Order: sequence, then C-alpha cells, then structure tokens
Amino acid sequence: MAELTEKGRRTRSRIVEATAQRILDAGIDGTSLDDVRAATLTSKSQLFHYFPGGKAELVREVALWEGRQLLAAQEPHLSDLSTWESWAAWRRGLEEYYLGLGRWACPIGSLTAQMAATDAETAELLRAGWTGWRTRVADGVRRMQAGGHVDPGADPDRLAAAVLAAVQGGLLLSQPERSSWPLEAALDSAWATLESLRPGGRAAQPS
Amino acid sequence: MAELTEKGRRTRSRIVEATAQRILDAGIDGTSLDDVRAATLTSKSQLFHYFPGGKAELVREVALWEGRQLLAAQEPHLSDLSTWESWAAWRRGLEEYYLGLGRWACPIGSLTAQMAATDAETAELLRAGWTGWRTRVADGVRRMQAGGHVDPGADPDRLAAAVLAAVQGGLLLSQPERSSWPLEAALDSAWATLESLRPGGRAAQPS
Repeated sequence: MAELTEKGRRTRSRIVEATAQRILDAGIDGTSLDDVRAATLTSKSQLFHYFPGGKAELVREVALWEGRQLLAAQEPHLSDLSTWESWAAWRRGLEEYYLGLGRWACPIGSLTAQMAATDAETAELLRAGWTGWRTRVADGVRRMQAGGHVDPGADPDRLAAAVLAAVQGGLLLSQPERSSWPLEAALDSAWATLESLRPGGRAAQPS
Repeated sequence: MAELTEKGRRTRSRIVEATAQRILDAGIDGTSLDDVRAATLTSKSQLFHYFPGGKAELVREVALWEGRQLLAAQEPHLSDLSTWESWAAWRRGLEEYYLGLGRWACPIGSLTAQMAATDAETAELLRAGWTGWRTRVADGVRRMQAGGHVDPGADPDRLAAAVLAAVQGGLLLSQPERSSWPLEAALDSAWATLESLRPGGRAAQPS
C-alpha cells in the first residue's frame, strides 16, 4: 500500500475500529464490506484504496488492533506479575476490560474460534498472538518462581496455558449466562492451582 | 413443516450433518446455502422444502445435532460421575471425542463464540444447551459430595463451570497450537482444584 498521509492513517484506523466493533456485534459472518462502508460512510473505492485485500485484509487488521488493545489493557501488570498483588491487579484489569466491552467475549478468542473462517495469514497472526500472550504470562510465573513465591518445579508454560484457558473458557460460559460468575469461577479455580504451588503449600496466607 | 417420510427424515439428517461438518471446517461465515447444496447434491427447492427457515434454521438444527453428539460421546460417564474413576473416564471420553473431530474445537463452543452471528432463537438454544451440560456436571459433583469424595462445602455449579471452562478454553488454546497440550494443562489445573477438595486434603492419593 502506498504511504498514507496523517489524514489517511486516521481514516484507515477509523475503518479498522468500526469493523472491529461490527465483528464483535455480528461475527465475521455478519460483517460485509457493505456494512463497513455504511458504518464508516466510506465509498467502495475508498475502502479498496485503504484495504486492497478486501475483507480478509480488514479482518487481519482487526485482529492486530484487538491484540494491541487487549495487551494495553493488561499493563503495567502483565509486564510485572512478580508478586501475588500484581497477579491480582492483572486479573482485575482483564475483567474490567472485558466488562467494558459490554459483553462476555474476548475479541481475540472469538476471532480464534472463527479461525476456520479466515485465511492462512490471519490464522498465523492469531497463532503468533496466542504464543506471545502465553509467553508473557509464563514469564510472570518464572518471576514468581525466581522470587520464591511459586514452586520452582512447576511448569510455567502449562500454568500460563491453564490461566489463559480459564479466561477464555470462563468468558465463553459467561456469554450465554449473561453474567460473569462462570468467568469468576474459572479464574478462582486457576488461581487455586497457582496458590497451591506456593512453597509451603496451600496453608500459606496471601502475602 | 409437514410430516416427513422415513426417506425424507434421512435426507434432512444428511443435510444437517453435512452442514455441521461444513460449519466446523469453514465457520458459519464460510457456509452458504449454495455450499450446503453442493455438498449434499440437493436442489434449491429441496433445501427449502426441508428447511423453510433457510440458513438460520439449518444452523439451529446443527446446534441441536452437535449437542446430541457431544452428550452421547460423554456417556455413560456423564450420567455417573460418582467416583474419581468415572471422572477420569469422562475426561478421556471427551478428549477422544474432540481428537476424533480432527481439530481442537468444540462444535458447540465454536457456535457459541459465533453466537453474535446467529438469531435469538439459536442463541436461546445454545443457552439452554450450556445450562443443561453444566447442570449434569454439577450433579456429578453432588454425587461425589454425597459419596464423601468431595468437600460438601464446595459449590457444585461453580466447580462445574470451572471444569467446562477448562475444556473450552483449553480447546481454544490448543487450536492455534495444533497440539492438545494446552487442553491437557487446563484440565490438569481444573482436576487439581477438584482433587484439592477431597476430604482430608490434597495429600490424599488417587483412589
């Protein structure tokens, strides 16, 4: 794509964000380029100018944008996760982010569940996103181990996967329930696993 | 819809099953009525005869069919879940079912994640499906409590939600990874929570 002016970049961002909202509301299936044009008051040729790759390119840009939003919502805690307080703050931040979206769905989780409906490039991008997220949580487990808060024999990658699975599965179960109690129950369970790995055992009190 | 002959019922089932496979492969988005016609060698008027409600009705029938398949794959264990052995057998049955699908995706979980793209009737049907599934797992927790295997103070519905969240979130994380290790890690974590609720504490060995 040709270099964009500042105004062009803004228009492009606006289109990506409107598409992200539409996909969250109606799924990839319920999001046509006509819907995007209507929501952003852009013409066919404008849309083609900014996204010559059409819907596939737009979905890819949405995945990247949602990934950045999701990571930003987890800071500064995600980059820390060296204390139990930091883990608790990270969990609160995530819950607030999802609540703020107005529904119990992770934009990245939903895109991944619809991955069969995307092209290989988008699938690869989602793959890289998951690995990145999980690695950052696993790094947090390693920091807890280095600080003597978690059993050094525990597997950081498996623990990180269990925690993110609780987030995603908890959200999925909360969606039909229209309540966050399943998310809370899933996170409580994942946290119980983490806390059972405090050196000295479960009897230890939160620091 | 008019009463169907036996042959008619079979044709209708065949169309539902082919649509289910297509949705699993390509998402609701990637499944048009033309795709269904091509996969089942049916005409437009035949498809309309069996599914006057069009794609929405087909998706609903797919949700019902997938729900029945999923429940059947969990028997006889799901109706038992009164011993640790039964829980282990249930877990194995679920894992084998998902492996047998050839990808790490729960058909019901995927439909739920695409629920925004469905109509209210389908959403309601998925809602009822989740409540039914969770209730049956919670009943299993109650049986474990009645048998003295799990702390009677634990909340069966929250535990059931945590276990199903581990299944769903674990599958979601396994999909981009193309490996079931995230599912295993998530299930191990949920099981650790359950087992920590054995009367007598975590030190107890599996029976």
